[in-house]
Order: sequence, then C-alpha cells, then structure tokens
Amino acid sequence: MMRVIGMMSGTSADGIDVALVRISGAPPAISAKFEAHHHAAFPARVRAAILRIANGGQTTAAEISQLNFLLGEEFARAATEACERWRVPLSKIGLIGSHGQTIYHQGTASKFLGVRAVASTLQIGEPSVIAERTGVPTIADFRPMDMAAGGQGAPLVPFVDYLLYGDAKLGRVALNIGGIANVTVIPAGAQAGQVFAFDTGPGNMIVDALVEAATRGIAKFDRDARIAFRGHTIPGLFARLMREPYLREKPPKTAGREQFGSAYADALIAWGKKRRAKPADLVRTATVFTSLSIADAFHRFIFRRAKIDELIVAGGGAKNPLMMAQLAAALPGVEIVPASEFGIPPEAKEAFAFAVLAYEAYHGRENNLPSATGAKHPAVMGKLVRGGRATAIVPASNPARSGGSGHERW
Amino acid sequence: MMRVIGMMSGTSADGIDVALVRISGAPPAISAKFEAHHHAAFPARVRAAILRIANGGQTTAAEISQLNFLLGEEFARAATEACERWRVPLSKIGLIGSHGQTIYHQGTASKFLGVRAVASTLQIGEPSVIAERTGVPTIADFRPMDMAAGGQGAPLVPFVDYLLYGDAKLGRVALNIGGIANVTVIPAGAQAGQVFAFDTGPGNMIVDALVEAATRGIAKFDRDARIAFRGHTIPGLFARLMREPYLREKPPKTAGREQFGSAYADALIAWGKKRRAKPADLVRTATVFTSLSIADAFHRFIFRRAKIDELIVAGGGAKNPLMMAQLAAALPGVEIVPASEFGIPPEAKEAFAFAVLAYEAYHGRENNLPSATGAKHPAVMGKLVRGGRATAIVPASNPARSGGSGHERW
Repeated sequence: MMRVIGMMSGTSADGIDVALVRISGAPPAISAKFEAHHHAAFPARVRAAILRIANGGQTTAAEISQLNFLLGEEFARAATEACERWRVPLSKIGLIGSHGQTIYHQGTASKFLGVRAVASTLQIGEPSVIAERTGVPTIADFRPMDMAAGGQGAPLVPFVDYLLYGDAKLGRVALNIGGIANVTVIPAGAQAGQVFAFDTGPGNMIVDALVEAATRGIAKFDRDARIAFRGHTIPGLFARLMREPYLREKPPKTAGREQFGSAYADALIAWGKKRRAKPADLVRTATVFTSLSIADAFHRFIFRRAKIDELIVAGGGAKNPLMMAQLAAALPGVEIVPASEFGIPPEAKEAFAFAVLAYEAYHGRENNLPSATGAKHPAVMGKLVRGGRATAIVPASNPARSGGSGHERW
Repeated sequence: MMRVIGMMSGTSADGIDVALVRISGAPPAISAKFEAHHHAAFPARVRAAILRIANGGQTTAAEISQLNFLLGEEFARAATEACERWRVPLSKIGLIGSHGQTIYHQGTASKFLGVRAVASTLQIGEPSVIAERTGVPTIADFRPMDMAAGGQGAPLVPFVDYLLYGDAKLGRVALNIGGIANVTVIPAGAQAGQVFAFDTGPGNMIVDALVEAATRGIAKFDRDARIAFRGHTIPGLFARLMREPYLREKPPKTAGREQFGSAYADALIAWGKKRRAKPADLVRTATVFTSLSIADAFHRFIFRRAKIDELIVAGGGAKNPLMMAQLAAALPGVEIVPASEFGIPPEAKEAFAFAVLAYEAYHGRENNLPSATGAKHPAVMGKLVRGGRATAIVPASNPARSGGSGHERW
C-alpha cells in the first residue's frame, strides 16, 4: 500500500487541486481509494502571468524559466498545506504525481523552423522543487512521452477511468467538464484497446470567461448556474455556435485554449455588445452550447459504437445544475451519475488520476492508452525525480551502501 | 559494467557532443573509461533560434515548446548517428545522460512577479523523445535539483573531476574552456567538501563571437589561434577588460551569456569600429584577456587555498595554442596537462561528465558537489525517463509480471 498525492492545475489556471489516494496492487487488481482533496489558489499575479503566456503572449526564456520554478514552489506549497490540513505527515507520502501547468499543447505536428514537423506540449511547475521541498519522490511531465510515441499527449485520464470504471456488464462513459470537456467511452467488458476517448469541445472555459467579464472579475465561474438561470438562450447565436467545425471532427481529437480560449470568449462578448445582448443571455447560451456540444458527441460518435448505460460526470461542470439537466434531457436512457458516487469528488478527479498514473509509472508499468491518445504503443509516461531530503537518509560518505540499494530507491 | 552515452550542447549552441563511456563500480572505486566521441552540428536555423532565445529575445510558449521537442529529435539523432558511426548497437547502451541545451540560467534569486524570489535554470531537448527514439532510459535536466536544494545549479562537472582526478599526493585543477571557463580545485588528498569550483569568466565565447563577426560567419572559432597570432594586443582595451568586476567576485560564482554573451561582443566590436582597430587585434586582445582572466583567478582565489601541481585542461580552448602558452607563462610551477592525457579528448569532456552523472543518478547516488554549487546538501540530480521501445519488452497484457520487476526497471 502506498499513499500517493496527485496534483493538477487545469487550463483555467485558477489553482492546484491536490488529491490524496491510497493505492495498492497492480492492474487488473489495482485498488485506488480517494482519501482527501485540497485546493490551493494561485496568487492573482501568478494566474495572470500563466494565462497571458498560455494565451500566446510574448515572453522570454527568462520568464518561462522563472515561472517554472515559481510554480514548482506553488505545487510544493499546495502539497505541504494539504498534508497539514489532512494531518498526514509528508513522511507518510510515498510518491507525488504532478501534472503541472500546461502553457502550450499542440497535439498534431506542424513544420517548425523549416527543419521538421513537430508536435509538442509544455507543462511547467518544476518537479525538482516539489521533490526537494516535500522530500517525496515526484513524477511529473507525463504528456511528452505519449507524444514522443506518436500520440497527441492527451487525453490521459481515460487510462485511469478504464482502470476504475471498467465493468463486465455496464457500458460507461466518464465525462470530465473542466476547462475543456472530455469523455472516456468504456464499453461493457472492454479490453484496453476498445476504450476510446476524446475531447468533446469546450467545458467551463467559455462560460467562465463570460462570467468573469460580466462581473468585472469578481466571479470566476457561474456558481449553481445562477447567472445562466436568469438569462435566456439566444437562438441565432446558439445555432451558430453549434456549427463549430470542431464538433464534426472525428475522434481521436483534442481541444484547448487554442480553440476555446480568450479569443473565442472575446469574440462572443464583442458579438453581444454589438447586438446589446444581456450578459446573462450570453452566459445561458454558452452554457447550453457547452452541454449540447457534449450531447452532440454522443449522438455523432459514441452511441453507434457502444451501448451506454451510465454517464459518470466529474469536473466543475458536474456542479452546474443547468448543464446536468440539459445532458439528462439530451441523453434519454443514460443514467447520469456524479463521479462523487464512486467516492471521488468531481473537483478532485484529475488530481486523483495523476496519483494513479504516477503510481503506475513508479512501478515501471505503461500508463498511456494508445486508443485514446493515438500513440503507436503503450509507454511509461512521466519523469522521476527523487526527493531531495530523502537522499539525506543515505549519507554521502557511505557510497558503498548507497550503491547497493540504489536501484530500488529510484 | 554499463555503457553510457553522455550528451551536451554548450552555451555556444554549435551542436551536440556525444561521448560513449564504459562505467562500472561505485565511488570511490568507480571506473569510467572514455570510449568514443561524436559531434553532431545543429542545422543553422536551429542554432540561430537557440541563440536568439538564449540571448533574451522575445518568444512564445509555443516556440519554446516546439524547440524543446525539436532539440529532443536532434539529441536522439546525435545519439543514433554516433552509435552507427561507432558500430555499437543502441541495444548495448544501458543509459543516456543528456544535459540538454541551456536557454536560461540565473544562479541567484531575484524577485519574480512580486510574489517571491526565484533562481532558475532552463534546459531543453525533450528527454522523452530521446528515450523513445533510442529505446534507452534517459536521465536529463540535472541542474534544477541542485538549484532546488539551494545551489546555483552549476558547475556540475567538478563532481566528475573529483571522482576522476582526485589524487592523494598531487594538487590538481581541472580547467574547462568552453563558452565559459571554469575550474575545479582538488587539493591533494581532498575530501568532497574540500573541493571547490567556480567559473573564472569567459571561455571561448567572446573570441568566437569576434571571429564570427570578422569573417561574416564563415569561421565559428579561431582555429589554432591563427587570427590572434596575426594581431597585436591593444593595451588600453586589455587593461579595461581586466577591470571586469566579475573577476573580483569571490567564489562560488557562475558566469554565462548574461555577462559575456552577444551584448558583450557587440560592445567590443563597436569599440573597435570607433577606434578603427583591426579585427585580428580585437581577437588577440580577447584571447589574451580570456587566458589571463583564468590565470587571475589562480592568483586571487586558488593558490592561497591549495598547492597546485597540475592544471588539466579540457574544452575547445585547450586546442588554442596562444591560450595554452599564456596560461603556462602566467602560472609558473604548474604543469599544464591536456585532459586528453587522461584518455578524454577535450571536446568530449563535458559529454563524458554527463554520462558519469547519469550513471550515479541511475544508481540513486547523490551527484552534486555542494562545495562547488553552494547547495545546502547533496542531492540526486536528474529526471529519469524510461525508454519507450524498451517498455514493449514487458507486454501490457501481463501486468503482474510487469509489476513484479517494476522497481528495478526504473
């Protein structure tokens, strides 16, 4: 049994989700039990810097280097704070899995410098800092290995969904509504190769941006869909949004801030201003678009490949009652189950997943799902950094002994 | 016994040095035998992009992300080409240690985003790509852990110098003249804590930039000091260069492109134009400054702390006969020995060192030298990525067996 901390900061960059997971065994008999969740917000200036850079703003190597180390400190602080709050000493944590903060992701290759075609991804939040401050071995930077193996580097959570939700009799879809919405489709009795996954399109990203603009930054998201419930869907705008070409693209496919980021929200806001639309109507329309773009993916790509009994919903969107009601209405015959019923609070789902992915990597087992990412083969994703303080246990003056046990301590 | 490949691309970004090293045992009885060296030049456009970004040019997260993956391909290609040339199959290589390409390094902390003081370093050349293309486990990104532990993240080679050159009776200094010049001082019979190391100042960086400007990019360095030998030292300029404040700073200290990069060379060229100095005179003056700034460090900081019998010289500067002659003249009583006499060609020295550092990290042993870097404690530097193809050996369908041997395979 190992207690593993998983950490994740999503594309919205509002802070770090930390999950404590008790894991034992090996697939298919792996057990991963959620124990606790903590959220650590980024300081406003840190969030602003992340969003500016992630949205394609001009920067320098210096700024990215400093931000990488600064976020390392933020992740380390989040883990330390979480353990203090949970009253679990860091010394009881066997491993940390840190996704880091994505500041760039391009799943498909394009020519770079006229030299060769490159796909790439960049997560920051220096794991050496996390390992040093916590004294816990840390595995980070999962996506690059899948991409090196020809995959899109995303989605990664489906592997964990498959480990946890795979069922002999029930066809299940795991849906995460974060900044982007993604699904993992696990047909009843599926082998790994039969599981498929893709991003359906926007999650909370558009609604969050509209709410933030409408409230001049006071609200970051539409709590309980209060704003959306006050508004009305604008039919013309809704129809136009549903014509989004991404929805028609065949899976596997990944979406990001590139498609649905600030430029997208700005265009919506500009549209609204021109037509004097009420902000609440814009928020309502974007909320409906988000839910129905997800339902659209079921009708286009999922139902024809698998019978689905249950839709397990995680992510911030799972707490949006309007989104949930619309999904239920658009997907008759599918039972909608909050991921929390599996013991994992929606807001902890991704952090939980990176604890499991790290645990698998630590034991040298492949932890990507080629059928979801498009990778040419299974691979062990993640880079392992040993704990700084942990090394002090073996004195430098005793190299023979250190050498003897070296292999296991990696 | 393990065959390890070390790879390094220095601040001059002219390409990748690859060293093949046969390593066995553990300190103090470690044996590291140099076997072969290969140099793979970067395409001109890649070098230009690196230098632009490393010199502080405006960039984006996208460009750094893509350059990271592109350089991963370059490093993988360098290792593959090297093995083909050496007629050593990649399957015989147990480990790759890759330093990567530094695009930013700031050894001492300064306030960032008004949030906290940060020191940081950024090496690129994605190790997941190297591991995937070669099928060899790869350890990369050494500097961040030393920096997380409070060190300057440099210099790292002194640890290897200490392992290789430590002698019961002879006081030795290992000098590397790369873009920057650095020394490791190993008093006779020294313990690790008595070894000290620092950057003396410029290495070939200034001379290279002057030569490149004078030849309109045709020559990248002053081969055999031919240009310098045609010129004369400009006494006023030389005296002014020797007043460089960095030379007086007390060790430990690190220098980089920040101090002696393109801005520095541009100022020299502008000075020369204004006074109609001959380019060869500028090159001569910069060459003399480089050698005597190294000698200056001996008189200021080394001789008063240790008796030195031998100066072991590596790096491109070891092949500059003017630099070598001036060092000999300025350091009477010290025997100057090319590192090649220890079986390591000067141009392979740093790549060799990263093979040894990776070997130590792989076996879970601390591989920084706090007395050189200023770190608060020894730490295991480096991030381990498993080989992509290597993972295919253990089929995903046999998780129990994979789990059983997982620890050792990290």
